[in-house]
Amino acid sequence: MRKIKLANFAVMSGLNPDHEAALREVVTELSAGENLVNICPSQWRGEPLPSQQAVKEIITLSRAIIFPGFFGDSDVTRENLLYFTGLWSEKLYKLLTEQIHAGLSMDVCTEDAPEFAATERLASTKAAAFMSCLPELRRLLNADVRATYYGDPAASSVQEVIYCYPGIRAICNHRIAHELVKLEVPIIPRMISELAHGETGIDIHPAATIGESFTIDHGTGIVIGATAIVGNNVKIYQGVTLGAKSFDLDKDGNPVKGEPRHPIIGNNVIIYSNASILGRITIGDNAVIGGNIWVTENVAAGERLIQAKANNVLRIKH
Amino acid sequence: MRKIKLANFAVMSGLNPDHEAALREVVTELSAGENLVNICPSQWRGEPLPSQQAVKEIITLSRAIIFPGFFGDSDVTRENLLYFTGLWSEKLYKLLTEQIHAGLSMDVCTEDAPEFAATERLASTKAAAFMSCLPELRRLLNADVRATYYGDPAASSVQEVIYCYPGIRAICNHRIAHELVKLEVPIIPRMISELAHGETGIDIHPAATIGESFTIDHGTGIVIGATAIVGNNVKIYQGVTLGAKSFDLDKDGNPVKGEPRHPIIGNNVIIYSNASILGRITIGDNAVIGGNIWVTENVAAGERLIQAKANNVLRIKH
Amino acid sequence: MRKIKLANFAVMSGLNPDHEAALREVVTELSAGENLVNICPSQWRGEPLPSQQAVKEIITLSRAIIFPGFFGDSDVTRENLLYFTGLWSEKLYKLLTEQIHAGLSMDVCTEDAPEFAATERLASTKAAAFMSCLPELRRLLNADVRATYYGDPAASSVQEVIYCYPGIRAICNHRIAHELVKLEVPIIPRMISELAHGETGIDIHPAATIGESFTIDHGTGIVIGATAIVGNNVKIYQGVTLGAKSFDLDKDGNPVKGEPRHPIIGNNVIIYSNASILGRITIGDNAVIGGNIWVTENVAAGERLIQAKANNVLRIKH
Amino acid sequence: MRKIKLANFAVMSGLNPDHEAALREVVTELSAGENLVNICPSQWRGEPLPSQQAVKEIITLSRAIIFPGFFGDSDVTRENLLYFTGLWSEKLYKLLTEQIHAGLSMDVCTEDAPEFAATERLASTKAAAFMSCLPELRRLLNADVRATYYGDPAASSVQEVIYCYPGIRAICNHRIAHELVKLEVPIIPRMISELAHGETGIDIHPAATIGESFTIDHGTGIVIGATAIVGNNVKIYQGVTLGAKSFDLDKDGNPVKGEPRHPIIGNNVIIYSNASILGRITIGDNAVIGGNIWVTENVAAGERLIQAKANNVLRIKH
Amino acid sequence: MRKIKLANFAVMSGLNPDHEAALREVVTELSAGENLVNICPSQWRGEPLPSQQAVKEIITLSRAIIFPGFFGDSDVTRENLLYFTGLWSEKLYKLLTEQIHAGLSMDVCTEDAPEFAATERLASTKAAAFMSCLPELRRLLNADVRATYYGDPAASSVQEVIYCYPGIRAICNHRIAHELVKLEVPIIPRMISELAHGETGIDIHPAATIGESFTIDHGTGIVIGATAIVGNNVKIYQGVTLGAKSFDLDKDGNPVKGEPRHPIIGNNVIIYSNASILGRITIGDNAVIGGNIWVTENVAAGERLIQAKANNVLRIKH
Amino acid sequence: MRKIKLANFAVMSGLNPDHEAALREVVTELSAGENLVNICPSQWRGEPLPSQQAVKEIITLSRAIIFPGFFGDSDVTRENLLYFTGLWSEKLYKLLTEQIHAGLSMDVCTEDAPEFAATERLASTKAAAFMSCLPELRRLLNADVRATYYGDPAASSVQEVIYCYPGIRAICNHRIAHELVKLEVPIIPRMISELAHGETGIDIHPAATIGESFTIDHGTGIVIGATAIVGNNVKIYQGVTLGAKSFDLDKDGNPVKGEPRHPIIGNNVIIYSNASILGRITIGDNAVIGGNIWVTENVAAGERLIQAKANNVLRIKH
Repeated sequence: MRKIKLANFAVMSGLNPDHEAALREVVTELSAGENLVNICPSQWRGEPLPSQQAVKEIITLSRAIIFPGFFGDSDVTRENLLYFTGLWSEKLYKLLTEQIHAGLSMDVCTEDAPEFAATERLASTKAAAFMSCLPELRRLLNADVRATYYGDPAASSVQEVIYCYPGIRAICNHRIAHELVKLEVPIIPRMISELAHGETGIDIHPAATIGESFTIDHGTGIVIGATAIVGNNVKIYQGVTLGAKSFDLDKDGNPVKGEPRHPIIGNNVIIYSNASILGRITIGDNAVIGGNIWVTENVAAGERLIQAKANNVLRIKH
Repeated sequence: MRKIKLANFAVMSGLNPDHEAALREVVTELSAGENLVNICPSQWRGEPLPSQQAVKEIITLSRAIIFPGFFGDSDVTRENLLYFTGLWSEKLYKLLTEQIHAGLSMDVCTEDAPEFAATERLASTKAAAFMSCLPELRRLLNADVRATYYGDPAASSVQEVIYCYPGIRAICNHRIAHELVKLEVPIIPRMISELAHGETGIDIHPAATIGESFTIDHGTGIVIGATAIVGNNVKIYQGVTLGAKSFDLDKDGNPVKGEPRHPIIGNNVIIYSNASILGRITIGDNAVIGGNIWVTENVAAGERLIQAKANNVLRIKH
Repeated sequence: MRKIKLANFAVMSGLNPDHEAALREVVTELSAGENLVNICPSQWRGEPLPSQQAVKEIITLSRAIIFPGFFGDSDVTRENLLYFTGLWSEKLYKLLTEQIHAGLSMDVCTEDAPEFAATERLASTKAAAFMSCLPELRRLLNADVRATYYGDPAASSVQEVIYCYPGIRAICNHRIAHELVKLEVPIIPRMISELAHGETGIDIHPAATIGESFTIDHGTGIVIGATAIVGNNVKIYQGVTLGAKSFDLDKDGNPVKGEPRHPIIGNNVIIYSNASILGRITIGDNAVIGGNIWVTENVAAGERLIQAKANNVLRIKH
Repeated sequence: MRKIKLANFAVMSGLNPDHEAALREVVTELSAGENLVNICPSQWRGEPLPSQQAVKEIITLSRAIIFPGFFGDSDVTRENLLYFTGLWSEKLYKLLTEQIHAGLSMDVCTEDAPEFAATERLASTKAAAFMSCLPELRRLLNADVRATYYGDPAASSVQEVIYCYPGIRAICNHRIAHELVKLEVPIIPRMISELAHGETGIDIHPAATIGESFTIDHGTGIVIGATAIVGNNVKIYQGVTLGAKSFDLDKDGNPVKGEPRHPIIGNNVIIYSNASILGRITIGDNAVIGGNIWVTENVAAGERLIQAKANNVLRIKH
Repeated sequence: MRKIKLANFAVMSGLNPDHEAALREVVTELSAGENLVNICPSQWRGEPLPSQQAVKEIITLSRAIIFPGFFGDSDVTRENLLYFTGLWSEKLYKLLTEQIHAGLSMDVCTEDAPEFAATERLASTKAAAFMSCLPELRRLLNADVRATYYGDPAASSVQEVIYCYPGIRAICNHRIAHELVKLEVPIIPRMISELAHGETGIDIHPAATIGESFTIDHGTGIVIGATAIVGNNVKIYQGVTLGAKSFDLDKDGNPVKGEPRHPIIGNNVIIYSNASILGRITIGDNAVIGGNIWVTENVAAGERLIQAKANNVLRIKH
Repeated sequence: MRKIKLANFAVMSGLNPDHEAALREVVTELSAGENLVNICPSQWRGEPLPSQQAVKEIITLSRAIIFPGFFGDSDVTRENLLYFTGLWSEKLYKLLTEQIHAGLSMDVCTEDAPEFAATERLASTKAAAFMSCLPELRRLLNADVRATYYGDPAASSVQEVIYCYPGIRAICNHRIAHELVKLEVPIIPRMISELAHGETGIDIHPAATIGESFTIDHGTGIVIGATAIVGNNVKIYQGVTLGAKSFDLDKDGNPVKGEPRHPIIGNNVIIYSNASILGRITIGDNAVIGGNIWVTENVAAGERLIQAKANNVLRIKH
């Protein structure tokens, strides 16, 4: 009898007891083991999981260390730079150790997984190795900044390039992620490149090799595949794809895995907007690829490819 | 006389009294009724407004429930999964009730608006109905994850796909938003799809119908219109548009509203990057649409469309 | 001897003393003056630096003031609108003063830099001038909203357009940034437009001139250059570029700077998805540019350009 | 067999599986119904519970409204006072409605509890009645501030008294809580007085009646009982108790409930530190009670009680 | 020369270069090793330090688990209690492990310190042992609540006692801290009791032994020493001291350490406000100690001590 | 007519239009100038106001700098101490400059107020002077810590004293506040001492002079007046008052202001709990004052005052 009264209260306050019961059932179903196909082994063993939030923080700290004042705390001055850099670096080292540990734990099969402490030790060694690359990363990124500044008529200062150019953010994430790839850190580099992708629309696979003084203008819609190799002083515009060639499928209809399948771009190449360069072809030094062009064969050094003039457009006068 | 002194103080401290006065005037003008043409009726009656922040939280919670550990709190383990799922689910139910209420309130004309409590009751019923779909949503999304993993040579694990693929985030939001469309929830589904658009550059209208095992690679620049229908095992690349055909305008020069105007894509279709498929045409099962192609007529089952080789490109040797 | 024991502790707790030492060295190197080529002079003098976070807050406040309830705090009602508008406006004025000050400080060469207080006074005057434009900005943006609503068959209400259309966010940021360009505020406008770019994939240079009732559909991948001029009632779709013409380089191989180099678009023009309009050409009133088209020459008033039918596509039946 | 390996992992990472199991058991026991004797009926029905955090916020807002700039946001100026006061007041009204609702719900027996909406309506009426008292509360508290300033040789300004005197905080909470007692709000007033007690060591029961221009010096250790009545211009020092007389127990050995049992203090009375005034006695107008004195009988108007000189102290010279 | 100009800038912007230099010097001095006499060995080895914030969180979680809804999140209901309790308990266990580890590390001398992992294991075992006491702690504290409710004429409900009585908070902290003392956890118990002291003015040493159904009224100024033993059903009022006897000093003039030096209080004893009971004396069962009394000798069971009537007060009529 | 409908909506949603109207009236009244008697002149001129939150942060930073690891961030180690100290010190210097500026602005009469920039310059000079005292403050406080450790049988380590003894927090705030008094900073020192009072129940006026190696045990209820002078190696217990003598009133009935009116305490004095020492008397070196004693006349060097044995207590046997 009291139960009936209770239902009335519940309806009045917007809480429907049937909903409560249904909710409990859903929770139970969602928490049952058989429904959890993607829970990874390391999660099951209680080891750290890669955390989107932590990886975001890793990028924030790295950018603050490399370009102090431009990213992170804007109170940084020459006087306090040492203090900020010290604390940022320590925090970055710790977060990296933890996330690399998480990445290392995720792949391994349960039976032959190394001990927790051994994995942590390995992770901290990789994190320390990364830390020692930071000055070189700053040098490389400063070269990218200068190349962007000199190459863009709209850039009014080097500072504007660092503050405002999505290309710089994407290259920054790429150079960080690529360093971690070289240190054989799993998954974390991919999370870092995806962060840049979400932020800028520029999708560079962390395994791609990018030369010095790389410039991206506008950026949105750029895709650079995992096995691409890009030379020095290359400049690309929005919508450019350095992709795998279409239609190369195996006998099961799936793309062939693990092969070099993306282009090799020489030095001093310019690729204009929405051009697609596909397959393991070579674009020679000093080549220029015009906008909206679809390239699937080698281009010689110094060659210029441009779209033929409007031969596929109808003009309808009224 | 004191007034003059005051002005001096103000200048010293960077506060200009003329600015203060101008500021007050602007505030008055901005708050005046006649200047508020878009303030909606429900806002005027004091009912809840849709909140961008709340909708963002709804997505965060949904993703955490469906892929525990990958999104949301990374401390989740098998042991505490029940507790996390319980609290997340309750919070999601409450937020959904509130935001659905807000959505329902927004459209109705003032005069015949239903009572506050009735709308809230309706909202909570729709929210509860959504909650009961969560296990099915997880099943569907796991199928999308698997399809993506098997279809991409660069994907090294199922976990990497969940953590890093923007396609999964966009489909996740779409499947959630589409469920709410089916429950006739106004505006909230559109806010959810726009969140994914902002995050990934993938713009799927929540009313679009998407089959099982859907794969998106790279993603940026994809547009799928409201009346599009997509079959099972379809894979699309960056820059693909499933759009309305251009130039179909009514006598006032505006696009015709409410008609089926986007394509129907069959099962097992692959659409490569930057292809545009426009109008209420049908792409048959197992068809393949090559990159950079503009399709406005039906494609038969099994047909392959590819760009003719470089017939519109000039090669300029130096 | 104790040193050896200490090392053991360190290893146990995951803290490697070698890492500590390496970390300290990296910190020292990163903080050394010679490594800081891009640190700007104002940073060195202790003046405020432009802050990404502050500029983000400036946009959040501006949007909340212009579209109360849709952006910012969703508790706003007609009753409390005056209070919210008052506090938001004061906060916006202060943040603007500070960030404009930072922008003004950044460019100037050390030797002839004006005094701190004079720069702050100038900044506050510019901020006040901006504040007085807010009612006009609301009027303009409401016109953009209405044009979008009437132009899109999928838009179910004016409110949906404000809440969900990335085009509105991008135009909103653009109109704010452009006002600051007119007030000769350096760098901050560019940071504002880049925020919209990151959020929507729409990249409008703040110096571009955009007419009334401007409509953007879907949006991702749009680029509008610094010297572009766009008329009234123009509508553009995703992937459209209003860019500089390719290949116009100076004798050093760099793009020519500072010249009008982007198109002039007339009134009532529609430009469909992925069209590229390049160079200082003129698109006449009422012209229509079809999707995927590459335009580098003038288009007359009323002319319609469409892609020739599939003349470059091969159909392969199986 | 795999189980054994798992245990090893767990030990390595500091996670003991036995602890996990024990933890789960404790959680189950703590969540079982029979262990929850104090869970209140309203909690069971899903109505709001009084929240320590919300009551703290109520006090913060009330203080900010009454003494703008001294408590709450220190950015308040004459110019923006209207805006701040408007938003603070609206927020206070809402929080009060919610917490009064919670208080009203807590006591009632399940069977005859009024409907949710009716209780909410009653709560909002009480909240509105409280809001209308705020100007009078400010007047009263300003009188307390002035009395404190004129009565303390160490007070250097009226502003110092508001910022720094715990007595003002305690009286402020008391006058707020007492107003709610007069509006027959259960439990919330007691939570408010306890907040002041924790903050200042001054424990004034919200039902106590306190006259105008009340002064507390130093404050810690003051106790004023529920049925005490204090006249105008009264001043008390640290450690003073206006308490119930000891030893008045009923036949079960418990204190007699509900009777007037605390003293009546006349106008212009001063009570020095650590004096205890106990039982329903009357201290006449203009009386002075010396420090460390124990008073259990009436004191006539104008009388002065002081401790006899050191008659109970031994002086031991070495 | 530039240096002089720089100084001018600095003065303008409120940054005095002399201050900067002085600041750097102070920082260097404060960070030098010889100035850091209290840095503890574990801090030096990089082990966790006890954290005031973490200990505060431990208390918040414990209170939320024991009195759900009254402390911590007020959204707890019967339905979600299991979920909340699960997550709170897990978090409490982890925080306790970490802080107990920190406590254990702090005392030990560097040379013979156990390994990091061994200490962590020991800490987690102690934390688990504490967790298993939680149901018993709830039982004890519920008895304290009931005793307080029945003993205070001003208490209107059991719920009011939990929400509002500082005595309950102090006893709650004490029972938690005492449990940790029994588990031989160093320093953390003392931090817990000091938190209650700061919050309530009630200072109970965690080593003190307190019986069941203990009642504290008003509370401020209560001191209970480390070797005190208190029986069941004891009630004490504000300002009561169960302290060490004065003047018992050793030959160096310091108090004698480590001896039982605080009183033993029997069952059913009442001690009124500001009474001081000093030294290792015994107060027999059912005794009553009146207010403001100084007791340094045994009191027999059932005895009542009261202050002689006003024999040391002068009444001065005017 | 629409108005009536509106009222119905409002009641349904718990928003009573009468409440709204009343609320607006209250807001208007509370914001009117005539109701704002305590708004201070500096607030009116837009200068910074003292902020409770900022002063709290000043104490947090000072404690963290003086006792690194014990207060503030517990991640501090010997390795990163320089970085933490650097950032804390810079932040402290800025906050102090701002709050001292606020304090200096508050007192001055409008007409002859110095310029904003001059006051800021003065404030920064005082802040810099304070910063240079920090090493000496650490030395003094370490002496207090050692004295407390050696004087308390319950203190198990020097670290426990720093972490857990309210006396140390109170003395720490006092020594900071007293330094600011010596620098003639208005109001801020008083806010600092009141923070300690609220946190510990120990009320030391910032103008009081306290010698080295000062010990406070338990602390709650201690009052030390503005003109008190305390020698070296003094120890006091809970409830001790070093106050002004009662009854010294001027002809208007107010306490006489500005005179030395609190006691002078010699070196090596011990004062036991709840003793009150009142008026400008002198307690000679090495004197001992027993608990609960009321002292209003000089005590010679080496003298011991104790309460006569229980001559005012009645023992009632049952």
